[in-house]
Amino acid sequence: MDGGAGRRGNRAVTVYLVGAGPGDPGLITVKGASILGRAEVLVFDRLIAHELLDLAPADAERIDVGKFPGRPVRQAEINSVLVDRGRSGRTVVRLKGGDPFVFGRGGEEALVLAEAGVPFEVVPGVSSAFAAPAAAGVPVTHRGLATSVTVVTGRVGDPTAPGGVDWASLARAGGTLVVVMGIDTRVEIARALIDGGRDPSTPVAAVHWGTTPRQRVVRTTLAGMGDVDLPAPAALVIGAVAGLDVTRPQAVPGGEGPIG
Amino acid sequence: MDGGAGRRGNRAVTVYLVGAGPGDPGLITVKGASILGRAEVLVFDRLIAHELLDLAPADAERIDVGKFPGRPVRQAEINSVLVDRGRSGRTVVRLKGGDPFVFGRGGEEALVLAEAGVPFEVVPGVSSAFAAPAAAGVPVTHRGLATSVTVVTGRVGDPTAPGGVDWASLARAGGTLVVVMGIDTRVEIARALIDGGRDPSTPVAAVHWGTTPRQRVVRTTLAGMGDVDLPAPAALVIGAVAGLDVTRPQAVPGGEGPIG
Repeated sequence: MDGGAGRRGNRAVTVYLVGAGPGDPGLITVKGASILGRAEVLVFDRLIAHELLDLAPADAERIDVGKFPGRPVRQAEINSVLVDRGRSGRTVVRLKGGDPFVFGRGGEEALVLAEAGVPFEVVPGVSSAFAAPAAAGVPVTHRGLATSVTVVTGRVGDPTAPGGVDWASLARAGGTLVVVMGIDTRVEIARALIDGGRDPSTPVAAVHWGTTPRQRVVRTTLAGMGDVDLPAPAALVIGAVAGLDVTRPQAVPGGEGPIG
Repeated sequence: MDGGAGRRGNRAVTVYLVGAGPGDPGLITVKGASILGRAEVLVFDRLIAHELLDLAPADAERIDVGKFPGRPVRQAEINSVLVDRGRSGRTVVRLKGGDPFVFGRGGEEALVLAEAGVPFEVVPGVSSAFAAPAAAGVPVTHRGLATSVTVVTGRVGDPTAPGGVDWASLARAGGTLVVVMGIDTRVEIARALIDGGRDPSTPVAAVHWGTTPRQRVVRTTLAGMGDVDLPAPAALVIGAVAGLDVTRPQAVPGGEGPIG
């Protein structure tokens, strides 16, 4: 997204918005890892693997903006840190889980940097919305089963409110649904999708900490989704593809347990 | 997705389905690049950057299964090659553009390998469906503009036929639409979405060869999408986010040209 190697127009990039990938530290991009290796300031979220944080030089300034319970950091504060450190001319890496532009608020950070005149570059990452299902043996698209995949957050409530999600329309659109940040609202989501016309027997795979050694997978149906007993972070994969486990010779209709 | 470093259960993995990422060779994953570096057989599609092919050892067997016009290779042949070479015990890398499980037919190849008892592993990649828009300054989700993103192929025709896409329902579901492999059917897609209720003034960004030096971006609206003059490969981003260019201080309502 820059005008050349580390430059944007004729100004050196100072802030990189880098996707860390879905969890497995090997799933960061080569470019992301390379930039991380020369970070002078590292601004990171929780859920980032320590193996990735260790790629930054030992003397880099490290700023944890993870939103741990009881210690909320507002997006405005993160934006201020990025602009402030970016203006210092040091190489700033903003490391975000998954992809910065897929429910990562990277767009907001990018706009703030652009407004402030701080040269920046976005380095995409592997989205956990696709990689967590894959790690459970579920391809989000598959010939004959899904011709589209929709990624959505687990927001419930008024679909016409800002940030609202129209679950009824998503139900009618069919295809694979991947709900991120939706484990806490799984009961309401399942109800809304069934009310919207989605078959209660639609397969569901819930993937906790996909691609990491802590991965756990629960397979059920839309009717049973409310009973999934997994904590966040977890992705809910809803659709015919969730009945597949391509790591095994044939489709798995149900069952529970860690896979792979 | 394997049971450890290069092993699956107690059997060594022989076939890796690796996502090459969206085009920029720096956007392959660290894990993917590492596996590529020890490939003994490399099975690849067209559109893969030569810098990535060069990561494989010089003496690796190279099998081009790219579907060039006039030289179609059937999926069944690719499957046979993977099973045959996989059974030889050599390290086989099946390198696919983007992510193997996002319209990559990786699920089919995985199932064939599982049925044949060939140990394999899937290494996800950055999907061009998200990275091409990002390279044009378009985040596929953005607070206040899009709470979901749907990735779909540009198939038109009977929505109830196998592989059919229900464009009317997708139109009503709102959110961001990213159409891959849809540049040739852009006229029909635009008509179907407008007929389905999507506003003709909805912003559209068409991104040809996103993330590469050949990148070209055309910005228009749904009503003007049929006039986009770009060849394949191109992603069509449809929705309010397509009116953003986060690389610039303010949103760009229209205009055309290569960005970044």
